[in-house]
Amino acid sequence: MKEVIEQLQEAIGPEKVFSSPIDLVAYSFDGTFEQHLPDVVVLPETTEDVAAVARIAAQHDVPIVPRGMSSGLAGGSIPVRGGIVLSLTRMNRILEIDEENMTATVEAGVVTADLQAEVEKLGLFYPPDPSSIKQSTIGGNVACNAGGPRCLKYGVTGNYVLGLTVVLADGRVLQTGGKAIKYVTGFNMNQFFVGSEGALGIITEVILRLICKPPYARTALVHFPRLEGASRSVHAVLTRGLVPATLELLDETAIECIEEAMQLGLPLDVEAIVLIETDGADEDSVNREIDAIADICLQTGASRVDVARGEEERAELWRARRSVSPSLARKAPNKLGEDITVPRSAIPEAVRRIKAIGARYGLPIVVFGHAGDGNLHPNILFDRRDAEQWAKIEPMVAEIFQVALDLGGTLSGEHGIGTFKLPYMREALGQASINIQWRVKQALDPQNILNPGKVLPEP
Amino acid sequence: MKEVIEQLQEAIGPEKVFSSPIDLVAYSFDGTFEQHLPDVVVLPETTEDVAAVARIAAQHDVPIVPRGMSSGLAGGSIPVRGGIVLSLTRMNRILEIDEENMTATVEAGVVTADLQAEVEKLGLFYPPDPSSIKQSTIGGNVACNAGGPRCLKYGVTGNYVLGLTVVLADGRVLQTGGKAIKYVTGFNMNQFFVGSEGALGIITEVILRLICKPPYARTALVHFPRLEGASRSVHAVLTRGLVPATLELLDETAIECIEEAMQLGLPLDVEAIVLIETDGADEDSVNREIDAIADICLQTGASRVDVARGEEERAELWRARRSVSPSLARKAPNKLGEDITVPRSAIPEAVRRIKAIGARYGLPIVVFGHAGDGNLHPNILFDRRDAEQWAKIEPMVAEIFQVALDLGGTLSGEHGIGTFKLPYMREALGQASINIQWRVKQALDPQNILNPGKVLPEP
Repeated sequence: MKEVIEQLQEAIGPEKVFSSPIDLVAYSFDGTFEQHLPDVVVLPETTEDVAAVARIAAQHDVPIVPRGMSSGLAGGSIPVRGGIVLSLTRMNRILEIDEENMTATVEAGVVTADLQAEVEKLGLFYPPDPSSIKQSTIGGNVACNAGGPRCLKYGVTGNYVLGLTVVLADGRVLQTGGKAIKYVTGFNMNQFFVGSEGALGIITEVILRLICKPPYARTALVHFPRLEGASRSVHAVLTRGLVPATLELLDETAIECIEEAMQLGLPLDVEAIVLIETDGADEDSVNREIDAIADICLQTGASRVDVARGEEERAELWRARRSVSPSLARKAPNKLGEDITVPRSAIPEAVRRIKAIGARYGLPIVVFGHAGDGNLHPNILFDRRDAEQWAKIEPMVAEIFQVALDLGGTLSGEHGIGTFKLPYMREALGQASINIQWRVKQALDPQNILNPGKVLPEP
Repeated sequence: MKEVIEQLQEAIGPEKVFSSPIDLVAYSFDGTFEQHLPDVVVLPETTEDVAAVARIAAQHDVPIVPRGMSSGLAGGSIPVRGGIVLSLTRMNRILEIDEENMTATVEAGVVTADLQAEVEKLGLFYPPDPSSIKQSTIGGNVACNAGGPRCLKYGVTGNYVLGLTVVLADGRVLQTGGKAIKYVTGFNMNQFFVGSEGALGIITEVILRLICKPPYARTALVHFPRLEGASRSVHAVLTRGLVPATLELLDETAIECIEEAMQLGLPLDVEAIVLIETDGADEDSVNREIDAIADICLQTGASRVDVARGEEERAELWRARRSVSPSLARKAPNKLGEDITVPRSAIPEAVRRIKAIGARYGLPIVVFGHAGDGNLHPNILFDRRDAEQWAKIEPMVAEIFQVALDLGGTLSGEHGIGTFKLPYMREALGQASINIQWRVKQALDPQNILNPGKVLPEP
């Protein structure tokens, strides 16, 4: 590795190459428990820097693990086989906001919330809103095809990707797409890299489609004595042709945790609440829509609908939703958050089975998530210091994934596969699909040096 | 080929294999001028049939050219190297409409309008609406990532693809995706095949996302004395956060042709008209939206807005838009319709330059298209029997593509590359991108037997 480090220093400058023990530790983990030391960390500042790093890695057959802010929840940016961690955080410039064509061209390391704030100053809007928006980067969001509450109405990250600059495993630089909204020139290379978790190429720049910021929004907190009622209401709303921006479900354990931590006055006598938001360009229409949704909910299982009056009450409701994760942290020393998706109709059954898993193992599982998309986040609460509890986690996670697969769903809606979900990939996709995906991987990364040990289990 | 034909007959049944001269001629062309005879035509009835055909083709190293109804406009389903034409038209069953999860599972050969009619009976909606909807198939739409007027608001075909069954070049059958709306399990295999024009795999089944049918719609015909005004209005509407279902532009030559053919009373003293439609679940909101758009247009360049009163007037307006192509056919014996996209702001400049090309060569070019998406269809009118005119077509098309590329656009927004646009691919994508796409192609189709001579120019 000494030679690799020297070559890296020479190629991109010693101020961008780090190999002291403390630096290696700092880049050894992500948003999960896992940790593995890299051999060297690089902080490139340009696409050319990234290309130079890739060429050196290829020459020496050393892994490259690209990462943004490493807020990922699947172990996707942990350097499980050592090698080079390539952090894109210094490439955080917004290169252009084209107001007329409503596009933004950004470096991969831009933090999503920073981009959102900049475009909103111009009345524009970048909708995808993963919970990690204040930490996670656009590059990471593209690499995981990140979602979020607003993605019900607005679509996920991949729906906003118009173009990419990608450094390939051998250091070649590929441009895909452009500013054109519709693009069928050659294969679908943009979407090929969306969700590829750094295993097919290193995304260094992104051209994003923007939309106009909806100036009006109304938010309602809907109480459901029974979880089935919540599911019925979600279905009823969507089949009336209403498309709220969000339909966020929180189960009773989630409500309890939030209330314990924040005392927001959430109802403690219901099985679920659903946070619903409508938005748009016309105030009257947005109001009519939230009222129509409230009526539907009351007819299909809700016991009460509180529509926020004014911006302050609305902010309060969102504060409740956003504090789920921190609240869980107060309830138990550790939590493991999963990210299954099921067909929307299977949500009540999925929640029921997941709760049963928690009861059987004696550890609480909180369920919340994007009900309109069928994307649930079951969070197991536990204490890792307790060996008995820790030993239960893996089998519990396996059972949760089995629930998703049995109900026609899948392992991830927005977090990706990383390392953590590899053991379940054969069951989820079948060996044939894995073999084919390996052929695609090998076509672009014949040495298997781009984020090895991620996404695909060994063939 | 005799042995191939015999094996095909044995494998899938002689009633599905055709090789008489008349059969070969019937499957030798698409929606363009080009024609090339296949050696044999197969009409499989199941995915297993398709897999059997692929295995035989691989064994004998014979091309397979998949096709739906062959309404394509880029030569994508012409068997330019002979071999097996594989028509999916017998695989036209709607396998399931899942009302609760709002999905449809269909065979690739289902005609798009047939699917739309079926789901609309249930109050559901499949938005993509290429002009060919009454002929073209879902499989073909996926293979070209087809668009249409409504795609401004609702997105293109690829945005509705949740899952695919694909037969690979060696006869293996791959399932991608599923009914889950969000899916980040492994690489983005669904979108990998979207827009691949039959060159990466043969799509045999598709799981599509449906939405709720918007019960209300209002349509307006907006007169623009100057083309720039139309472009300004489109921009103004979209930057106010209004998202009409359609923003369809027709230039003065298109208007003239329609009027000549249909006498609908369209204005002949303007440079352009824009057909605008709003739709949604709330009648009042839909009305407010069309009124707001009308106001914006009048403030930014429109001389007149006629909002259709009642369904009959609305149907009349759509009849005008839909009769562009047939009207052109009355104006000249032949037309060549292109499909460029440009960043939205470049539309006036693109139209100006395209008109100049027409003037320079002395052949009229009609321009219409999806103004909100920057997707224009320049149509050259000519008489193929006139050798002098015919000789101009290729250089004119080349210049039109150059306009698109010079303005930051691309060669295709919804028709694909096929054979016709191959000569322009190097200029559009660069050799590096073409090389990388070839590697992807070779990973899945090492013998290059899937629709050879399409999408990618020889490396």
